[in-house]
Amino acid sequence: MNTFGKNFKITTFGESHGKALGVVIDGCQAGMELSDTDIQPILDRRRPGKSPLESGRTEKDRIEILSGIFEGRTTGAPIALLVRNEDVRSEDYEALRSVFRPGHADVTYYEKYGIRDHRGGGRSSGRETVARVAAGAVAMKILKEKGITVTGRIVEVHGKTTPKDIEKEILAAKEAGDSVGGIAEITAKGCPAGLGDPVFGKLDALIAGAMMGIGAVKGVGIGDGFAVAEKFGSENNDQMTSDGFLSNYAGGILGGISSGQDIVVRIAVKPTPSIAKVQQTRDIHGNEVEISVKGRHDPCIVPRIVPVAEAMLALVLTDCLLEQKKYR
Amino acid sequence: MNTFGKNFKITTFGESHGKALGVVIDGCQAGMELSDTDIQPILDRRRPGKSPLESGRTEKDRIEILSGIFEGRTTGAPIALLVRNEDVRSEDYEALRSVFRPGHADVTYYEKYGIRDHRGGGRSSGRETVARVAAGAVAMKILKEKGITVTGRIVEVHGKTTPKDIEKEILAAKEAGDSVGGIAEITAKGCPAGLGDPVFGKLDALIAGAMMGIGAVKGVGIGDGFAVAEKFGSENNDQMTSDGFLSNYAGGILGGISSGQDIVVRIAVKPTPSIAKVQQTRDIHGNEVEISVKGRHDPCIVPRIVPVAEAMLALVLTDCLLEQKKYR
Amino acid sequence: MNTFGKNFKITTFGESHGKALGVVIDGCQAGMELSDTDIQPILDRRRPGKSPLESGRTEKDRIEILSGIFEGRTTGAPIALLVRNEDVRSEDYEALRSVFRPGHADVTYYEKYGIRDHRGGGRSSGRETVARVAAGAVAMKILKEKGITVTGRIVEVHGKTTPKDIEKEILAAKEAGDSVGGIAEITAKGCPAGLGDPVFGKLDALIAGAMMGIGAVKGVGIGDGFAVAEKFGSENNDQMTSDGFLSNYAGGILGGISSGQDIVVRIAVKPTPSIAKVQQTRDIHGNEVEISVKGRHDPCIVPRIVPVAEAMLALVLTDCLLEQKKYR
Amino acid sequence: MNTFGKNFKITTFGESHGKALGVVIDGCQAGMELSDTDIQPILDRRRPGKSPLESGRTEKDRIEILSGIFEGRTTGAPIALLVRNEDVRSEDYEALRSVFRPGHADVTYYEKYGIRDHRGGGRSSGRETVARVAAGAVAMKILKEKGITVTGRIVEVHGKTTPKDIEKEILAAKEAGDSVGGIAEITAKGCPAGLGDPVFGKLDALIAGAMMGIGAVKGVGIGDGFAVAEKFGSENNDQMTSDGFLSNYAGGILGGISSGQDIVVRIAVKPTPSIAKVQQTRDIHGNEVEISVKGRHDPCIVPRIVPVAEAMLALVLTDCLLEQKKYR
Repeated sequence: MNTFGKNFKITTFGESHGKALGVVIDGCQAGMELSDTDIQPILDRRRPGKSPLESGRTEKDRIEILSGIFEGRTTGAPIALLVRNEDVRSEDYEALRSVFRPGHADVTYYEKYGIRDHRGGGRSSGRETVARVAAGAVAMKILKEKGITVTGRIVEVHGKTTPKDIEKEILAAKEAGDSVGGIAEITAKGCPAGLGDPVFGKLDALIAGAMMGIGAVKGVGIGDGFAVAEKFGSENNDQMTSDGFLSNYAGGILGGISSGQDIVVRIAVKPTPSIAKVQQTRDIHGNEVEISVKGRHDPCIVPRIVPVAEAMLALVLTDCLLEQKKYR
Repeated sequence: MNTFGKNFKITTFGESHGKALGVVIDGCQAGMELSDTDIQPILDRRRPGKSPLESGRTEKDRIEILSGIFEGRTTGAPIALLVRNEDVRSEDYEALRSVFRPGHADVTYYEKYGIRDHRGGGRSSGRETVARVAAGAVAMKILKEKGITVTGRIVEVHGKTTPKDIEKEILAAKEAGDSVGGIAEITAKGCPAGLGDPVFGKLDALIAGAMMGIGAVKGVGIGDGFAVAEKFGSENNDQMTSDGFLSNYAGGILGGISSGQDIVVRIAVKPTPSIAKVQQTRDIHGNEVEISVKGRHDPCIVPRIVPVAEAMLALVLTDCLLEQKKYR
Repeated sequence: MNTFGKNFKITTFGESHGKALGVVIDGCQAGMELSDTDIQPILDRRRPGKSPLESGRTEKDRIEILSGIFEGRTTGAPIALLVRNEDVRSEDYEALRSVFRPGHADVTYYEKYGIRDHRGGGRSSGRETVARVAAGAVAMKILKEKGITVTGRIVEVHGKTTPKDIEKEILAAKEAGDSVGGIAEITAKGCPAGLGDPVFGKLDALIAGAMMGIGAVKGVGIGDGFAVAEKFGSENNDQMTSDGFLSNYAGGILGGISSGQDIVVRIAVKPTPSIAKVQQTRDIHGNEVEISVKGRHDPCIVPRIVPVAEAMLALVLTDCLLEQKKYR
Repeated sequence: MNTFGKNFKITTFGESHGKALGVVIDGCQAGMELSDTDIQPILDRRRPGKSPLESGRTEKDRIEILSGIFEGRTTGAPIALLVRNEDVRSEDYEALRSVFRPGHADVTYYEKYGIRDHRGGGRSSGRETVARVAAGAVAMKILKEKGITVTGRIVEVHGKTTPKDIEKEILAAKEAGDSVGGIAEITAKGCPAGLGDPVFGKLDALIAGAMMGIGAVKGVGIGDGFAVAEKFGSENNDQMTSDGFLSNYAGGILGGISSGQDIVVRIAVKPTPSIAKVQQTRDIHGNEVEISVKGRHDPCIVPRIVPVAEAMLALVLTDCLLEQKKYR
């Protein structure tokens, strides 16, 4: 439930307004140099409060390595990483103590657990991704040593595709007390052929699960994704010559196994559900109420989801690389 | 790798042109009536050779229950199901012994395993899904007892949306030695709120992994899926009254947990890669060759993927129902 | 529950008096030669009816390989092995339909599942181990290629330690309508140092779980086992020179990780619970009854447990070898 | 590797001389009251430095709950527990930087990881069990609510069985620069029938794995354990009347499933390997050296292993209780 991966396993914990967020990484090889400086810059990319497009919460997100390192190198023991919460304003959420915010996990968590941690979404908050990004930074270091890079980019926000239009669109939504969705694309370069396992451990299945497991993601496509629905087989097959493939419509994965081409993943990100605009909802007693969500929220979560999605792809690939070593 | 699920676990085996396909189901409750007649009709829906739109391979797909049943009821012991292959024409594939078919797993399996089972795709064949559908039939029986139904439908084939247009489109592609892709939608009705686990066991993450793990699926969307990218938050949030939700853009899942609304999943299915049209490719020695794939293939796999996707959704939901019982 | 192992995973199914017993092996490397002749001789060692010391049930235990092999070699796909039951005399058990045999799983299975498969113990029968031994044969083939051998021997039966005394003791117990327990020892030679994982995946923890998971085993010791309780540290530590260890009291495992010395495991096997002697018991309705267990039973199960324990140790070691490859 | 359990899952981290030890508990039900005061007293029982029989290291072992609790109750989110190390004297170990201590994991860790954390054994230290005991305290709270108690006792130390003799034996060994082994027994009372799963998830298999996974444990017996080897079936079977069982030789487990009787487990604990007596060994360069292990060590680890073994049994039972709920 809170563990991801099979060989390079991460277990995360922590809530938006709790004491801390953290992750235990199990399965990292011994002997690798690792320090805060490998992780902090990547965490900083995810950090809120860097621009007017983002939430105003100002967390320093200082990483502390609690275990697994001796004299600057990994020992094979589990690596525990901790980030303390600092800028917590739970009072912002007091009004929400018993109200379900539309588009949020409030109502489903309550149905599931019969309890509510209303402070900033608790465990369902996007702040949980701090732990993923910290673990992803370690995965990326491993990948880099093997010549694999993972990078993401914003493809589209609310129908706009250029940086300038996107910024305008986000600010307009913010102004209007609203929010907007979009699409991001994550690409892994340098990945060897052979990763992924038939039939339930397919690389694309693992990636899809990893991406859809990020809050706000509602769609995942590999390569041409949903566009395949309008293609002929003769247009969609990646033909081959002795030099390799002539195209990469498949997004680097055939039959669930990496082909050696770039792995290309797109994700659809819904508009942030926290909006100032008045919405209808109900409280835990069944009363109908109107809600206008205050607090410090991103009017568009796409930019901040990019480093999270990169982390998840890095984690999947690292896990598959270890898996693959078993059978060689 | 060949096991799916955590509580209601299935382990499948078998190849397209091997002796048999089968599945071991582990975690089915004791005391449930179960016989061939619960499984055979559902397997028959997946069976090829029922119309000119489908592969001409004529398998009876007779199910044999090998274990786990005593006097007509499940005992809690693992249930092994077996389907023997009958209409195997491996000679059709002799010409492909060393050639990689474009769009197929041939090349990636070879990279991974250093060996090729060229007969009908071996383990990477769609025929592997017989075992999933058989297991799914058992899952559906469990779901039915809880008032949950899972049904799928074809949404679109190559841009067409009406049955008549779709049939015409498929036959035209077949005529042209080509194939077409499309979109299917699977819906679960009657699902209780509370299924799915934060943060990596989200219901949508499990569904996305399950769907993308079906061969030929290249995209998965929950609820509005990729359409969220062009929406405002105020358009996308499902507002609530005391009677429940006013809409279901979320596809029945909020924060990774079922809301009690219909669960709605769409999958994008690529055009069948096996086409008669001549394509460029290479063989295992690196020589460039031209290929025209013969054999008995579906010109569009969307109709036959529907029962498989239903089975996978049924398996995910059954697994989550058991998971949920632990914490009640 | 019915799956063992993490990398070299086996999933077993089948009951004593059902149609068949079987196992699916997932995680066997591709390209290894494998045929019936690798498995049948090892199954034959476990087979009943070979001497007057054993159960009179005469099963041929013919192995059928259903999948995973192509042209005589493993493909990386799951290997399914099947053994059909033949000499089933369920009528022997009719009298036991509602009576709980002392020392058997009858009463606990009934408590757990609320259902009884009274025919020969169903899934709780020792016959279930056919599937383990078949899978173990494949593991042993892998180990052999790496120079590792696994062999077991009877150490003691009812206090006797020489073959002649043991045989006399078993026949005397049989004559008296009784049964006897004993101790077996399993040794793995040629195992490399470094297998096993701190802290919960310790090699000795895995072995202990594997051995105690064999029906009738009530105790497991590694190296000196329970004898350590009466030793000084200075007597128990295996001192080292530059040539290696001066002793092997530890049984080849230190801190849960193999040391490169022989791995030595002892198991305590209880007397067969099925005895002709009259015993007090109750039936499923709570009535008190006397029971004298008829049927074809081994008066001492130690000899027949040896191949099963060998198989389990082979499975653990194969699994750990694959695990270890990930981090090298 | 560092995760234990399937439903009530714990993941531990930390080293003897690192910054901290900790555990993440995943799968604890929501709504249970939980605070430091449930955990601290149980941790204190394990704490060193309480008597002359124990190591002189004086750790306060203050527990900090980092996540998973809101307003005094569990939320269903993972519970992270942290204990900072305080009394670390790594300089004691400087002399051991390159020497392998006999009976310790030093040599096998080095073989496995190619790296050495020589400070107090690093991850292989008994100090790692702080995290297990903390998690076990949470498990015990859950068990208590169901009327289940887990208690351990020292059965024997170096052949002595009375407290006074045992104390004398331990002090004598300490005086002599030596150490002694012994046997402990852990009993669970109030456990319902039906826990444990055939065939590889047998309750006794899980217990054996859990116990053998504690450093220094070399043998595990259930009920009569190794004594079964000298018994007749007629002496060993627990006969039944309508009131229940007439004896409990089986230790509360039949066919791997709990019978409702007390669960009785014995473990054999080796003499502490760290002794002042001079021993032969080698260093990482292959040189032969003599060693006399200084530092603050327990001359007999049996008393301090009792709370750890209780914790492990509590964890296994809690896990099985959750597992069992799935099928009811």
